Amino acid sequence: MSMSTSERLIEATRELLWERGYVGTSPKAVQQAAGAGQGSMYHHFAGKQDLALAAIRRSAEELGAAAEAVLGGGGSAYARIEAYLLRERDVLRGCPVGRLTMDPEVVADPELRAPVEEVLGRVRGRLAEVVREGLDSGELSGGLDPEEIAATVLATVQGGYVLARATGSPAPFDTAVRGLLALLAPIPR
Amino acid sequence: MSMSTSERLIEATRELLWERGYVGTSPKAVQQAAGAGQGSMYHHFAGKQDLALAAIRRSAEELGAAAEAVLGGGGSAYARIEAYLLRERDVLRGCPVGRLTMDPEVVADPELRAPVEEVLGRVRGRLAEVVREGLDSGELSGGLDPEEIAATVLATVQGGYVLARATGSPAPFDTAVRGLLALLAPIPR
Repeated sequence: MSMSTSERLIEATRELLWERGYVGTSPKAVQQAAGAGQGSMYHHFAGKQDLALAAIRRSAEELGAAAEAVLGGGGSAYARIEAYLLRERDVLRGCPVGRLTMDPEVVADPELRAPVEEVLGRVRGRLAEVVREGLDSGELSGGLDPEEIAATVLATVQGGYVLARATGSPAPFDTAVRGLLALLAPIPR
Repeated sequence: MSMSTSERLIEATRELLWERGYVGTSPKAVQQAAGAGQGSMYHHFAGKQDLALAAIRRSAEELGAAAEAVLGGGGSAYARIEAYLLRERDVLRGCPVGRLTMDPEVVADPELRAPVEEVLGRVRGRLAEVVREGLDSGELSGGLDPEEIAATVLATVQGGYVLARATGSPAPFDTAVRGLLALLAPIPR
């Protein structure tokens, strides 16, 4: 079954936002990428902001689900954090959600920023729960603050993309993740 | 002494690149912000790419110097890493250099990407030296890889900006940094 026009418009907007950001995404480019006319676009969406909101919500949903699939899976707390950090990513493309925080129009628009803030907050909260489990079981070093470590884990991923894109290679992302995993390594028992 | 026209053009470009990125920075906006005419801009610079290169080089220089001021200062290895992580930053504006990695035109242009890659690589290298000192003195836990930890430190900073901008508050940056400092805390002797 082929995608409906509104689906094609949302998917094209997601790709363009990921690649070029909100500032660099024109309604015309969306229409071209989706193979839809201007009239058709404005039939389905009130405008660029409305279309971007649908696209950002979709990307945020997928990010949240991908994180949950790993963090809610089996294994020890450390193994789940490790799986989260090592899960397959298109490192050189960066994070389709985190990337939006560099867009002044997105961060200045409460509606567009809301799904970005919500999902990053949700992933942080989920990571904090897993860290707490690891502390309770004695797997991770006592005295750590779960909220802090969760923020460090998420920041390492988001910043890892920056380092990778700066060099044109995924290697610095992997290096940053390995460093964090070494710091988090479970206490030998 | 007032700034020369070429200085004003470079400074205006730096501000616009920081705020809106390369895609969102038009020669017209630069001219307006600098109070310079089109003829004057093209007298000093061949075009947008040439002007952006001068601006990016200047921002990279300043970033490198600010990092060196802290990492090359006095104190233990941990104290210098702590000072680097806690140095005053305009967290909600993000990093003027790291931000450029989200610009497809910058990462696709070897000339524009070069100063970004160079300075982030230099800061990573400097951080790795400080980590190595801390390992040699026994201040930091043995078995850590200095290159890995350096990448984790830089990624936490760059990703901390993403988390902060997502929430519209500097708090998540500080939380991520505190988590990293707890993980790096020196071995009690």
